[in-house]
This record gives sequence, C-alpha cells and structure tokens, in this order.
Amino acid sequence: MSDHITKNIRVEEVARTKFLKLETITWTDGKQERLWNSAARTTRSAGNDVDAVAILSRLKSEINPPSTLVVVQYRPPVGGKTVELPAGLIDPGETAEEAAVRELREETGYVGFAKTSSPVTCLSPGLTNEAIKTIIVDVDLSDPRNANPKQALDDGENIEVRRIPLADLLPELNKLAAEGFVIFNGLYTLALGMSMRHE
Amino acid sequence: MSDHITKNIRVEEVARTKFLKLETITWTDGKQERLWNSAARTTRSAGNDVDAVAILSRLKSEINPPSTLVVVQYRPPVGGKTVELPAGLIDPGETAEEAAVRELREETGYVGFAKTSSPVTCLSPGLTNEAIKTIIVDVDLSDPRNANPKQALDDGENIEVRRIPLADLLPELNKLAAEGFVIFNGLYTLALGMSMRHE
Repeated sequence: MSDHITKNIRVEEVARTKFLKLETITWTDGKQERLWNSAARTTRSAGNDVDAVAILSRLKSEINPPSTLVVVQYRPPVGGKTVELPAGLIDPGETAEEAAVRELREETGYVGFAKTSSPVTCLSPGLTNEAIKTIIVDVDLSDPRNANPKQALDDGENIEVRRIPLADLLPELNKLAAEGFVIFNGLYTLALGMSMRHE
Repeated sequence: MSDHITKNIRVEEVARTKFLKLETITWTDGKQERLWNSAARTTRSAGNDVDAVAILSRLKSEINPPSTLVVVQYRPPVGGKTVELPAGLIDPGETAEEAAVRELREETGYVGFAKTSSPVTCLSPGLTNEAIKTIIVDVDLSDPRNANPKQALDDGENIEVRRIPLADLLPELNKLAAEGFVIFNGLYTLALGMSMRHE
C-alpha cells in the first residue's frame, strides 16, 4: 500500500436536499483517474469529524443484572421498524458525551453519565462520510431521577423503548429480527462480540 | 407505538449517479404528512433485502490463539484510510454466505467456510436503506490452501490486510484510531462487546 498515492481529489455536488447531498468524488491514484459516488449529511458543523452519537447504556441496580436500552421506531429510509441503540445528531457547540446524555434522556427518559467514548467510527465507508462515536452511558437505577423515566420526544418522533438484560442481548436481537425488525448493525455486532465471551 | 400508523408512503427520486440515488420519502403518520431525505444503492438486486456482507474471520491453528483479519484502504467517501472487516457487495444469484467466502478470498487470500450468518442489519437507518449481513467465516490455517495466501483484487482496489489476535482487537483498534485511521463502526462495537467479557 506504500506505493498507493492518492492525489488531485475533487468533490462535485450532484444534487442536494435539506439533509443530504449526493456527490461524485474524482481522484488520481498511482495509475489513473478514478471516480466514486458518495452521499453526505448537510448538517455536520464545519471542522467537525463526527455527525452523531450512539449510546450503549448500562442500567445498574443492586437487585437485577445489568441491562441496556434499545429503541424501536419506523425508519423511512429502511421502510420498516428498526431496533437500534439510542442515537442522535450532535448539536452545534455540544460535545459527543453531552449529546449522548441528552439523547438518552430525550429518547428513553433515563438520566445517566458518559463513562467512555469510542474513537470516530464510520458507518458505511463505501457510501458516506457519516461518522459516529459510540458512548457508554451508565445509568444508576437507584437515582431518584430514574424512578419514573419520561421521554421528551420531538414532534414526529415515535420511539418505543425496550429494556434488555445485557446477558440476553444476542438472543433477544435474533428474536426481534425473526419478527421482522431490522437491527442496527453496530448494535448487532456489539451483541455478537459479547456472546463470543463464551467461546 | 401501537397508535403510530404509517401510510401513503411515496418515494421520489431527486437525483441518480451510477451507484447511488438520492430520494425524498413522503408518508403520513397519525397526525400529518412527513418528509425524509434518503440515499440508496442502485445496485441491489430486485426482491433482495441485503446489499453486502461483512466478514468476521476466525483464523485457527494448533499453535497460536485465534486471530482475525481486518482490511485497510483509502475510502473516497471518508476521505482517508479506514480499518474495516473484509466486505463486499453480493453478486446477482449469489447467497450471502457464498459472497462472504469469495470476498474473504479475494481481499485477503485466505480460504474459509461460512459458519454463521447474522440477520439482515441496517448500517445507517436514518440515512440509507443499505443493509448487510455479518458472516462468521472460519479459516483453518493448517489447510494447505492457506499456506501462502494471495489476494485477487479488482483493478483500482488497493487493500492492505492486517491480522490481529481476537483477544487484542479492541486495544489494537484504539491504537489504529489514534494513528488516524477511521474504524468501521460494526468492527469497533464487535471489539467493544468482546472486551465486555471481562466486566
């Protein structure tokens, strides 16, 4: 790969809607001019390298084994209902960790604190520059603010919250997939990794 | 969520390039007409619900602990080098498992067999319908065909293969991210899940 030189990169905007743009990228490698089609969000703040956060919550109590929250919603691009980690775009001026705590509270009602953050990761590198961080947010169920969690959804959002014991995550996702829900890849592989502990 | 009725779904194509199209989706929920912007691949076969496969390889030998293969390449949409699971589009008439074995052989040179397949998962459900299956492919290093693995790349592909012990996956990905590589989300959360075995 050391002889692979990428230069003369040009990005041409083919079309734009409010939230997305379609682009053609032209560049030269060691051999010749090459071409790639790409989609990008129009909403990323200038100078920022990340669009959104996904939240792996860990709900802990003295009584029950640790559990996590997933969200079910109709997703127009998918044309059906998905099962995802709680997630959302980062607001201007907000850190990824602040966005994670805010989005978890809005989508699920639970109040937590950001424990660890992943590096910037790409969601579909052959198709888009879209990038997210996965934030682990710990939720203390003995905190009085979590006694009666209430969602605070935007108009048009219709999100169902499900709580799943972390130890059951993979079989529960397989069950939901068999019922016709489409699982978010980053959630599924997280559960797959957790299941490999037993191998 | 039971009162959330989605109907009158219309998809309008805004623009199209060779591999991608930009769409506006209009639908009615319980309250009013709503609008969403979406990108989709033009390459998905009719009637198919999955575009591509990602491959979690497990290289096993009598001598060394199990390892996996990741691929490093320049990705025009990301504008930099990524670290990903080996992956590729499913060819017409091909099963996901066949695509996984073929892509692993082409991208890394290793010959394996498909062990398990994930359900259909979505990569970025707020942005695209793009969907993949993650296939676990086991590679027997004592198989003579794996004595001297050779890539078979398409023109324009320039892929570097790295072999990482499964037990070291998360720290190795964090190190690569610190060096400036962008990690594929589904690979990162897989490693994150594996690391949670110790908690």
